[in-house]
Amino acid sequence: MARLAARQGNRYRLPMKNTPQPIDTLIHARWIIPVQPADQVLEHHTIAVHEGRILELLPGNEARQKYTAETEHQLDEHALIPGLVNAHTHAAMSLFRGLADDLPLMEWLQNHIWPAEEKWISPEFVADGTRLAIAEMLRGGTTCFNDMYFFPDETARVADNAGMRAVVGLIIIDFPTVWAANADEYLSKGIEVHDHFRHNPLITTAFAPHAPYTVSDEPLKRVITYAEEMDIPVHIHLHETAHEVTEAQRNTGQRPLERLEALGLVSPRLMAVHMTQLADEEIDHLATRGAHVVHCPESNMKLASGFCPVQQLLNAGINVALGTDGAASNNDLDMFGEMRSAALLGKAVARDASALSAMQALHMGTLGGARALGLETHIGSLETGKAADITAVNLSALETQPVYHPISQLVYAAGREHVSDVWVAGQHLLKDRVLTTLDRQAIIARAQQWRERIQMADEHPES
Amino acid sequence: MARLAARQGNRYRLPMKNTPQPIDTLIHARWIIPVQPADQVLEHHTIAVHEGRILELLPGNEARQKYTAETEHQLDEHALIPGLVNAHTHAAMSLFRGLADDLPLMEWLQNHIWPAEEKWISPEFVADGTRLAIAEMLRGGTTCFNDMYFFPDETARVADNAGMRAVVGLIIIDFPTVWAANADEYLSKGIEVHDHFRHNPLITTAFAPHAPYTVSDEPLKRVITYAEEMDIPVHIHLHETAHEVTEAQRNTGQRPLERLEALGLVSPRLMAVHMTQLADEEIDHLATRGAHVVHCPESNMKLASGFCPVQQLLNAGINVALGTDGAASNNDLDMFGEMRSAALLGKAVARDASALSAMQALHMGTLGGARALGLETHIGSLETGKAADITAVNLSALETQPVYHPISQLVYAAGREHVSDVWVAGQHLLKDRVLTTLDRQAIIARAQQWRERIQMADEHPES
Repeated sequence: MARLAARQGNRYRLPMKNTPQPIDTLIHARWIIPVQPADQVLEHHTIAVHEGRILELLPGNEARQKYTAETEHQLDEHALIPGLVNAHTHAAMSLFRGLADDLPLMEWLQNHIWPAEEKWISPEFVADGTRLAIAEMLRGGTTCFNDMYFFPDETARVADNAGMRAVVGLIIIDFPTVWAANADEYLSKGIEVHDHFRHNPLITTAFAPHAPYTVSDEPLKRVITYAEEMDIPVHIHLHETAHEVTEAQRNTGQRPLERLEALGLVSPRLMAVHMTQLADEEIDHLATRGAHVVHCPESNMKLASGFCPVQQLLNAGINVALGTDGAASNNDLDMFGEMRSAALLGKAVARDASALSAMQALHMGTLGGARALGLETHIGSLETGKAADITAVNLSALETQPVYHPISQLVYAAGREHVSDVWVAGQHLLKDRVLTTLDRQAIIARAQQWRERIQMADEHPES
Repeated sequence: MARLAARQGNRYRLPMKNTPQPIDTLIHARWIIPVQPADQVLEHHTIAVHEGRILELLPGNEARQKYTAETEHQLDEHALIPGLVNAHTHAAMSLFRGLADDLPLMEWLQNHIWPAEEKWISPEFVADGTRLAIAEMLRGGTTCFNDMYFFPDETARVADNAGMRAVVGLIIIDFPTVWAANADEYLSKGIEVHDHFRHNPLITTAFAPHAPYTVSDEPLKRVITYAEEMDIPVHIHLHETAHEVTEAQRNTGQRPLERLEALGLVSPRLMAVHMTQLADEEIDHLATRGAHVVHCPESNMKLASGFCPVQQLLNAGINVALGTDGAASNNDLDMFGEMRSAALLGKAVARDASALSAMQALHMGTLGGARALGLETHIGSLETGKAADITAVNLSALETQPVYHPISQLVYAAGREHVSDVWVAGQHLLKDRVLTTLDRQAIIARAQQWRERIQMADEHPES
């Protein structure tokens, strides 16, 4: 009787004051940068994670009293940020990394990239290349990528198996390829991929008409209709070079953006990639329409495409995301490098050292990307209820000392190599720099096998 | 008697055919990129090193027969390149890394950097900051740096103790600082530093008048005379911003370069740093005079200084070197990053994807730097007789796979983190990423101590 009373007493007392709630994971960190709200840096805080979602951000000592976790991580010299969102890439092209550099754009495409694609693209190539790309992205703190390539079903399958979040592009292009023969087939195969993965928590899709100069009006109109029905975004290369714009004007009398506007494509669904050629009124127009711009600073520089006026876009209220582009034109999938390049180049282009701040670059690399992909309620910031897509960056290296301002340090001094741990939907995919779902050595071995075959063909195209 | 004959026989036979020559070091590598000749990639070759110099580059199997080395290194997945030359930095400023970013140039200087310098610069600060900088540079493959800062004696002492090669700037500026009160004292203290280190194999000097707008004609004339007598270069910030040029025109009626030309400073001794504002005739002029330009692409972007027309300079036959600038305006001392940024930005500025090739960027980061510093007979390429300043880069990481073209891979895909080993004058200063002459933890601890003091003063300037 006395014992029962004591237990009842305990039962009353503990839940109210001291019984810690059992959850999956607690990550204690020196700094947490949630991105939303902007500029916030929480010190000695903890992220509580349960069933793949963020339960709460709270001070470390409170977290230890409130929760008991199956796994706890103590990251005393690290900053936690939202997993980076690579908003434009062609993942499988990592197998072409460095195949042909320093060439004029058309020679690069016509004599190297297109012949290589024609010869080598297959489900196997896409699977191996995507695996290499995902491994690189995870090691560099990227937790979600927006892809455009052939065999999107393979891209989706590989990402899903690796535990990586991906928005898979349902590619559409006017000419026949190994993936599809015509607009009908591109569309129907794309919709098939969408249907197959529609309940997958990691994989979503976007229509990916390649570019205005490679997709005619008819398929673009159907894309608009289907995108509306399926409620997915549209991902397109747009105003990448001056050549693209002047050619379009010569051929159609319209600038590409003007043509897409007339077709009804310029809307909050639109992810317009590159946008190095923009008149002021076009910027106003994009802002009014709520379209998103995906900025790829390193690709734009390497291919001499032009300069995207990022600060002007931000001033106009346009949401800007950040992408690496494919590894054949970058030559990496490093979003830390891309954030840094965006911040540096943004100041140079705006002719203002206070333009494109570290916080703006980090926003573009996280929440800006999530917003462009239509995933902003789900990822892009460290907030209660969002998916636990988290990147930990160790700031204790020589290269990142001393630390005056963690956000500045992350963008201007830290590199991909300082990423220690990555979680996607709560799953620990990079653990103290070791990949947990991918076999690094096997991926490298496959890349080397592909290189031997591809290089021989590139150097001896006649054979 | 028979034994003696046998030994004599051996003595005859072995030296002629098989006796390997005893030397200090053999470094066997998958690839060697000597930089001179350009574009050469040697496969499965070896560098033989003795008494701090390169004896020879030869195929690996020949090297094993010809030499026997006290130390041998087998670097099966690595590329060897000449140690990188950081041709413009302010090493000690690494203690201000990230102190104040994203600010207009004048606010950054007047409200943060200058007050911090006035309050904190001391021999101890310079020693600690330079040690942090050298550790970072060695870990990033840099073997020589060209410095400009106060207390150059400390910079020289720290570099010498670390085994690092340095060109120490004998700073001159019109106003008094903690280092010197007036032109006489700057010059005499500089010459003292020069004399003290004149027989040191690692340390050389350059006159370092800060900039045209901070040094008047009289001291500049004396610099020219002394530089000639002492046979050392002259290192100056020049045409960094449009503001600098227009202000000079307003105040003196001359563009700064014009004024330096009239004074007789524009010669093969001149290292003109930044040069973002150049008329075509100025480029011709620099070429005729044989002056060197030090390009700092990341600093120029971060401070929105303008764009240096690098490809135009190269086309005109001007030697271009590469510098990181100080860590307060970069925010790293990473020459791999700088080569990559130079190649990317160079294409964007030239509006030509075939401009500023990977090989040209690597040249600027090595032999171009050596030439600007007047050290081209001694360092900058892997050639017989030159100092064994060597950097090994491991290309086996996921991020650098597959490898089609090693030079391209080094510039566009590899990063500072792939540097495995570094030798300066044959001394192994970085050994599988571990510093052998510097105490990493002690350096970090000192940096953190400085941060605590500096940050408090920066945030509460009144106290």
